[in-house]
Amino acid sequence: MGLRIVPGTANPLLTAAVARTLRTELVTCELDRFPDGELRPVMDHLRGDDVYVIQPTGPPVSDHLVELLLLLDACRRGGAGRITAVLPYFGYARQDRRSQAGEAVGARVVADALAASGAQRLVVVDPHTAALEAMCGIPVEMLTAVPALAGALAPLVPGDAVVVAPDLGAVKLAEHYASLLHRPVAVVRKTRMTGATVRAEEIAGDVAGRPAVIIDDMISTGATIEAAARVLLAHGGAPAIVVAATHGLLVAGAAGRLGRLPVQCTVTTDSLPRGHPPALPLQVESIAPLLADAISRMHHEQPLGDLLTRS
Amino acid sequence: MGLRIVPGTANPLLTAAVARTLRTELVTCELDRFPDGELRPVMDHLRGDDVYVIQPTGPPVSDHLVELLLLLDACRRGGAGRITAVLPYFGYARQDRRSQAGEAVGARVVADALAASGAQRLVVVDPHTAALEAMCGIPVEMLTAVPALAGALAPLVPGDAVVVAPDLGAVKLAEHYASLLHRPVAVVRKTRMTGATVRAEEIAGDVAGRPAVIIDDMISTGATIEAAARVLLAHGGAPAIVVAATHGLLVAGAAGRLGRLPVQCTVTTDSLPRGHPPALPLQVESIAPLLADAISRMHHEQPLGDLLTRS
Amino acid sequence: MGLRIVPGTANPLLTAAVARTLRTELVTCELDRFPDGELRPVMDHLRGDDVYVIQPTGPPVSDHLVELLLLLDACRRGGAGRITAVLPYFGYARQDRRSQAGEAVGARVVADALAASGAQRLVVVDPHTAALEAMCGIPVEMLTAVPALAGALAPLVPGDAVVVAPDLGAVKLAEHYASLLHRPVAVVRKTRMTGATVRAEEIAGDVAGRPAVIIDDMISTGATIEAAARVLLAHGGAPAIVVAATHGLLVAGAAGRLGRLPVQCTVTTDSLPRGHPPALPLQVESIAPLLADAISRMHHEQPLGDLLTRS
Amino acid sequence: MGLRIVPGTANPLLTAAVARTLRTELVTCELDRFPDGELRPVMDHLRGDDVYVIQPTGPPVSDHLVELLLLLDACRRGGAGRITAVLPYFGYARQDRRSQAGEAVGARVVADALAASGAQRLVVVDPHTAALEAMCGIPVEMLTAVPALAGALAPLVPGDAVVVAPDLGAVKLAEHYASLLHRPVAVVRKTRMTGATVRAEEIAGDVAGRPAVIIDDMISTGATIEAAARVLLAHGGAPAIVVAATHGLLVAGAAGRLGRLPVQCTVTTDSLPRGHPPALPLQVESIAPLLADAISRMHHEQPLGDLLTRS
Amino acid sequence: MGLRIVPGTANPLLTAAVARTLRTELVTCELDRFPDGELRPVMDHLRGDDVYVIQPTGPPVSDHLVELLLLLDACRRGGAGRITAVLPYFGYARQDRRSQAGEAVGARVVADALAASGAQRLVVVDPHTAALEAMCGIPVEMLTAVPALAGALAPLVPGDAVVVAPDLGAVKLAEHYASLLHRPVAVVRKTRMTGATVRAEEIAGDVAGRPAVIIDDMISTGATIEAAARVLLAHGGAPAIVVAATHGLLVAGAAGRLGRLPVQCTVTTDSLPRGHPPALPLQVESIAPLLADAISRMHHEQPLGDLLTRS
Amino acid sequence: MGLRIVPGTANPLLTAAVARTLRTELVTCELDRFPDGELRPVMDHLRGDDVYVIQPTGPPVSDHLVELLLLLDACRRGGAGRITAVLPYFGYARQDRRSQAGEAVGARVVADALAASGAQRLVVVDPHTAALEAMCGIPVEMLTAVPALAGALAPLVPGDAVVVAPDLGAVKLAEHYASLLHRPVAVVRKTRMTGATVRAEEIAGDVAGRPAVIIDDMISTGATIEAAARVLLAHGGAPAIVVAATHGLLVAGAAGRLGRLPVQCTVTTDSLPRGHPPALPLQVESIAPLLADAISRMHHEQPLGDLLTRS
Repeated sequence: MGLRIVPGTANPLLTAAVARTLRTELVTCELDRFPDGELRPVMDHLRGDDVYVIQPTGPPVSDHLVELLLLLDACRRGGAGRITAVLPYFGYARQDRRSQAGEAVGARVVADALAASGAQRLVVVDPHTAALEAMCGIPVEMLTAVPALAGALAPLVPGDAVVVAPDLGAVKLAEHYASLLHRPVAVVRKTRMTGATVRAEEIAGDVAGRPAVIIDDMISTGATIEAAARVLLAHGGAPAIVVAATHGLLVAGAAGRLGRLPVQCTVTTDSLPRGHPPALPLQVESIAPLLADAISRMHHEQPLGDLLTRS
Repeated sequence: MGLRIVPGTANPLLTAAVARTLRTELVTCELDRFPDGELRPVMDHLRGDDVYVIQPTGPPVSDHLVELLLLLDACRRGGAGRITAVLPYFGYARQDRRSQAGEAVGARVVADALAASGAQRLVVVDPHTAALEAMCGIPVEMLTAVPALAGALAPLVPGDAVVVAPDLGAVKLAEHYASLLHRPVAVVRKTRMTGATVRAEEIAGDVAGRPAVIIDDMISTGATIEAAARVLLAHGGAPAIVVAATHGLLVAGAAGRLGRLPVQCTVTTDSLPRGHPPALPLQVESIAPLLADAISRMHHEQPLGDLLTRS
Repeated sequence: MGLRIVPGTANPLLTAAVARTLRTELVTCELDRFPDGELRPVMDHLRGDDVYVIQPTGPPVSDHLVELLLLLDACRRGGAGRITAVLPYFGYARQDRRSQAGEAVGARVVADALAASGAQRLVVVDPHTAALEAMCGIPVEMLTAVPALAGALAPLVPGDAVVVAPDLGAVKLAEHYASLLHRPVAVVRKTRMTGATVRAEEIAGDVAGRPAVIIDDMISTGATIEAAARVLLAHGGAPAIVVAATHGLLVAGAAGRLGRLPVQCTVTTDSLPRGHPPALPLQVESIAPLLADAISRMHHEQPLGDLLTRS
Repeated sequence: MGLRIVPGTANPLLTAAVARTLRTELVTCELDRFPDGELRPVMDHLRGDDVYVIQPTGPPVSDHLVELLLLLDACRRGGAGRITAVLPYFGYARQDRRSQAGEAVGARVVADALAASGAQRLVVVDPHTAALEAMCGIPVEMLTAVPALAGALAPLVPGDAVVVAPDLGAVKLAEHYASLLHRPVAVVRKTRMTGATVRAEEIAGDVAGRPAVIIDDMISTGATIEAAARVLLAHGGAPAIVVAATHGLLVAGAAGRLGRLPVQCTVTTDSLPRGHPPALPLQVESIAPLLADAISRMHHEQPLGDLLTRS
Repeated sequence: MGLRIVPGTANPLLTAAVARTLRTELVTCELDRFPDGELRPVMDHLRGDDVYVIQPTGPPVSDHLVELLLLLDACRRGGAGRITAVLPYFGYARQDRRSQAGEAVGARVVADALAASGAQRLVVVDPHTAALEAMCGIPVEMLTAVPALAGALAPLVPGDAVVVAPDLGAVKLAEHYASLLHRPVAVVRKTRMTGATVRAEEIAGDVAGRPAVIIDDMISTGATIEAAARVLLAHGGAPAIVVAATHGLLVAGAAGRLGRLPVQCTVTTDSLPRGHPPALPLQVESIAPLLADAISRMHHEQPLGDLLTRS
Repeated sequence: MGLRIVPGTANPLLTAAVARTLRTELVTCELDRFPDGELRPVMDHLRGDDVYVIQPTGPPVSDHLVELLLLLDACRRGGAGRITAVLPYFGYARQDRRSQAGEAVGARVVADALAASGAQRLVVVDPHTAALEAMCGIPVEMLTAVPALAGALAPLVPGDAVVVAPDLGAVKLAEHYASLLHRPVAVVRKTRMTGATVRAEEIAGDVAGRPAVIIDDMISTGATIEAAARVLLAHGGAPAIVVAATHGLLVAGAAGRLGRLPVQCTVTTDSLPRGHPPALPLQVESIAPLLADAISRMHHEQPLGDLLTRS
């Protein structure tokens, strides 16, 4: 089986970089967009091949998800030998439970739709929940960009800095960063009120007078980071702040929100595309090497070992 | 089991009209839209009920589809006794086959996703392909709005008018209209070149000097109708034109395209919402009575008989 | 994986020809027929192989279908590496929708039974409906015998002949023939009353005084062809008629029905077996090369491209 | 849910008798048979009903099986509330294992096809293998006609008679008969060579000079019974023979085979239809009361208890 | 449908209490245990009923799980109208992800086996992971015993006490307790090294000189509680300790481990049975009212609202 | 794909012997046993390999079954190329039907759980029921140890010995032994009353004064063998007895039960482990060569032919 990369349209630069790293050509794949919004992929021959469809399901998430479903179906009907969906960012991962009786479990809906459309394996990067694989009937490889991000952070972080988890869900991630950066961890405890409003409360760990590296798996509106930063400042910490997160959605005024804080730099990856230069100092670490390495090992049936998330 | 209507957000006026006709309250259902575009429905208690989720999957089709999947999952997890997805307009119905080897079969992808998310039955109105039910593992009821539209057309259509099918796929539909209007049928044969460009060629049937009722299942860009009209005009026909179609998507300059023709009136239904007054004379026949009747019969386990499409 | 051909009993000559073309031996496969009609296949070792089971499901359709299900199960339990069901003729393809509420959708029933019995892929030739692949959860390759038939027709068709579609469902097929034969198309519009009775009505296209090539995907009782021919004759056309169809079922007096018409020759394929010399001038073009080519490409993971139907 | 009986065409007299016993009208169900052998059921409205489709899958087994699959699909698509397939005779039950590596497991193929077509429960009568229910993912109720047959046998069997199992597979059945008739059991051991040829060998139990009741679950060609009778005669037994079996297929010269033996009477049920008066003394005990009782209890959610087979 | 309670053998006292509260008799259900350890349930008639099988899958977890699978299958084959598996304790919930590449995801394995055996809905109490429902294809209701436990704790907890989460995974639970007890929360951060060894590190929140209520979802070996208590003591806290957890497995020396600490009382529920009086002061709050209330509401199709876990 | 053997913990000696015979190293696989009884396998890299998990599901059957499910899931999630579960002894095979309405069908429950956890093929040895394969949706290879056991028996069996089937279910097995040992067969007919009590009745075949080889597929409590032996003795047979069975569970006083009989030797295989020297003369024939041969052929895609059971 030949190794083939099918490019979704959600992140063409990343996909091209992955293919370049793997020294393979992308499968020619056109995506017709009809005037009424329906999509129609037309892709080149990949019969019998070991196919990896790369598509992060970031905003516009519905469009990117439906496109991915169609691409998977096209691969299946086109006779692909094995189909792996690579989602550098897995949308709807936060909907892994109902917080009220009348809700849906979006993560599972997405997982089921991917499998129903032909995906035989998934690859994701730093998903919001490590239980993601338990929600999928098909095998899931959960890669981590933390080593790459920690490498980028190292020169930016002073010796007395502290790694700050902005909420409890980020503590394991913070410990991963901290172990790589040889720094201590502090934790902000907050209660999420609604999707966009966040109330931060307390801090655990010694932060007074110390520079802070606030980390998270993703930055959406920046509200979580902002709240954590305000708590740090209120506790006499964070004379300088660096922010790091695998997924930089940066929607709904995130740049402005972070810009109003003493954030020196925001480090993120290219799991999601950057449309235009953001209004904040942003350092982007590419996960193309990570994805290319993982795809290469999966294609050659080698273990992924150190590429995987800790949990 | 109580009869419950869950309103998707795709067509609130239609859904409200259906509920009103059924003299039932809509299930309270809020749809959170997160800043990154993810959706979260929160709906009221419907445990044990006979639930009908009404959501046409017109533009923006991906959003409306993903919302529908989440609503179905919420109904399932919320303990609904029976779940019927009512799609007044079924998006992706045209993708019922691959015209090239590298394509997807979008209609099947949608059908599978609906079933995987919890739909146990489907209700659709005048779908683009009658084979839709064969693509679904769950039962599908295919309703028709043609009698309602024919009723609206009757006073608009002179005695010497001819019903015109703008392509071969519309002939059965045209015959249905013609039998109700007691008019002859003419057919335009065209070859569809791409999604938006259409080449019309010939006409079968006597159209010279006769007013025309051009009918179709849907009007997307209006290009098909325009092409048919131009053929009619070239053949000396259509001194006056009335257009009728169940689904009025009217995207991408459709109003302008129809406005440039001697179209007296366009008759369509409210299967899809009208955002703002269109720039063309439009008469909208509501399918709320049709849907309400079908839902009521299905709830009371009565046959649908005359509400169904012919094929 | 070795390439293996499993011969169903429905068309041994065709299957042998395919194997010969592929220069492979048929898998030894005996079919016990018990006195009460139950079938028991016993086939040779095919563990790990790439298996193609060839069985058209023509009359007696139930027997041929059940035999195929058993053969697929035997392949699966016998350890076949990959199982492809090759149906040169796919029975029940016309039942792709319910025309009344109390009917079944036979095409889907067959598709589900094939998949449940172990088929992983299907290959069909000129199926009655192009939506067939949307009805199947497994990939379907729809081959076409039209180029082969057109090649056979070329010397039989005068320069002024017209390709005639006997009903609307056959127009796309007619256009395919016409483009290969460089002839115009005419269309007969009919209404099918019951399974065996057909009422033909009108004709679109210039047929007066021109020889006709009436084409269809299949000839069952010949009633559709007969009705079209009578319309042609009534319109002053068809001084000479050639009939062409991929599948020649020729049941229930078809030979007599065609024999009473000025049909010069009927051209068909060997997708279904000929029991005894028919009482009409028949030219049979073998699809063994087509099937052998498709199987070879599928086995070697090459694209099928030009072997596929247009739609 | 109303109780509805859908009549397959395999045994109309039995089905009518069941409906009569249940004091319910049969669902109107027409079965179109197309000239090419395809079947199309058209049945009346049964939306929301508790439906029992009665169809033994005896000869012609393929036709009866395919018809049953279509009926089940029609019920499902027609909105039946619950669908139970009632197979008074379950064809292919003997194929419950592969005796060679290249065979199929027909019983499982049938079970899977029934479930795939919409059956939610099965009812069978004295199936050839009691493991049948383990082969089905859906619940199976295995009824027994032995009490009814034993009642018919009682007046025919002298006081010194012995119940004879013609092979080891029939011993449990023989013990059931024997316990009801208060007679001892004898067993003939044979080795089945092929489908139609049988070699009988020994006998266990005291048969000398005693009348015999040879029992079995089914009589196909009669070869098993004949072989057992010849062993009995060779051992000085069976001055008079009565034969009893639930399913009287009586194919391939069975009547002649039994007629050459001193068989006084053959007692069987109407699980399969009798086309014309057989050339042997036959007493037919109807299982209509058994089926009606079972259906009534299942409809009213009562236990089946004593109607079930022992195993 | 009648409400029926099927008692697994894992917790007969709890099950009897639930039935008593619901004023219903338990379904008679015997469980044969064969000398080789195989289990065979034999249960009374429950055809058409709304069945709730109550079985916590605590130690011996494999036996209790396999028994539950058999009970579910017996319900399904016995014709139950609806089958809900009630697991007051859900074993293997901690295996919701692989922490290394070579592991299994036990929670999903259990979830899949339950569904494959016939469970249509699950009810669990305070599961270790709130993402449990996303792992199940069938609806899951996650009840909480925290209000009941908090009620029992209220008289035991001084006014200056603090609720302590022994690790990050327990913080949400601690906040739930704290809101009901009107007390603040403190958190111990630990790193779990292996299954039985735990290393505790830090504490967030004001604990000095304050009595502590250490809470968790379950107490297995007591090592987590012990480690938290030692950290509290080292920080000058916990002059008096009360321990509370929904599930008291108390295996492998848990009693001794807690007995060596200044634990005044351990409050738990009867989700798991108590074999013999434990060597520690234990107060057991019954969840029978909680389960009975939930089952009654589910049976009567009422919302569960306040019985559900927060997340 | 490399050939890999994953050792379950149920029979480490057998598994090691299989690996030795195949000249392959076992996959490193640790099984954590948590104090509360939950299991956690951690196995080495086997991505892309052809994996055979060897685990007999003998006592403690629930533990061994659940461990097997987890191992299969770990293989699947770890990226195994193909997963075959090898069950030298298949527990719950006797539960292949309900003998009363309220029972489960344990064999099917196990089969479904294995497939749901990732098994793609099964290998079993002399299962209690040959219909086992019909209960599994995945292919099953049923191997037989009878030739190996017959080889071990040959020197132990005098020329006038008779092979005795202790009940009807063992007759086919007895005939297999007899054909290899060139001895006649006798049959004991018994009625099994409950799981542990057995009532033996009659004997068919000449046993007076002849040494006996009592054979069965398994010896659980030894009660069946004991009953058969007592019948033999009562009929003046069995001056010397040899017992042979593939599976020697030998639970619940089996050694004592056999020890009280004139049993010269019991011959069995190592399909199940021997914990400590039994109190009876036992000769153990290893099935490691059989399993190794079967695995090697399946890995190399060769037919299993003579390794399979007859039925």
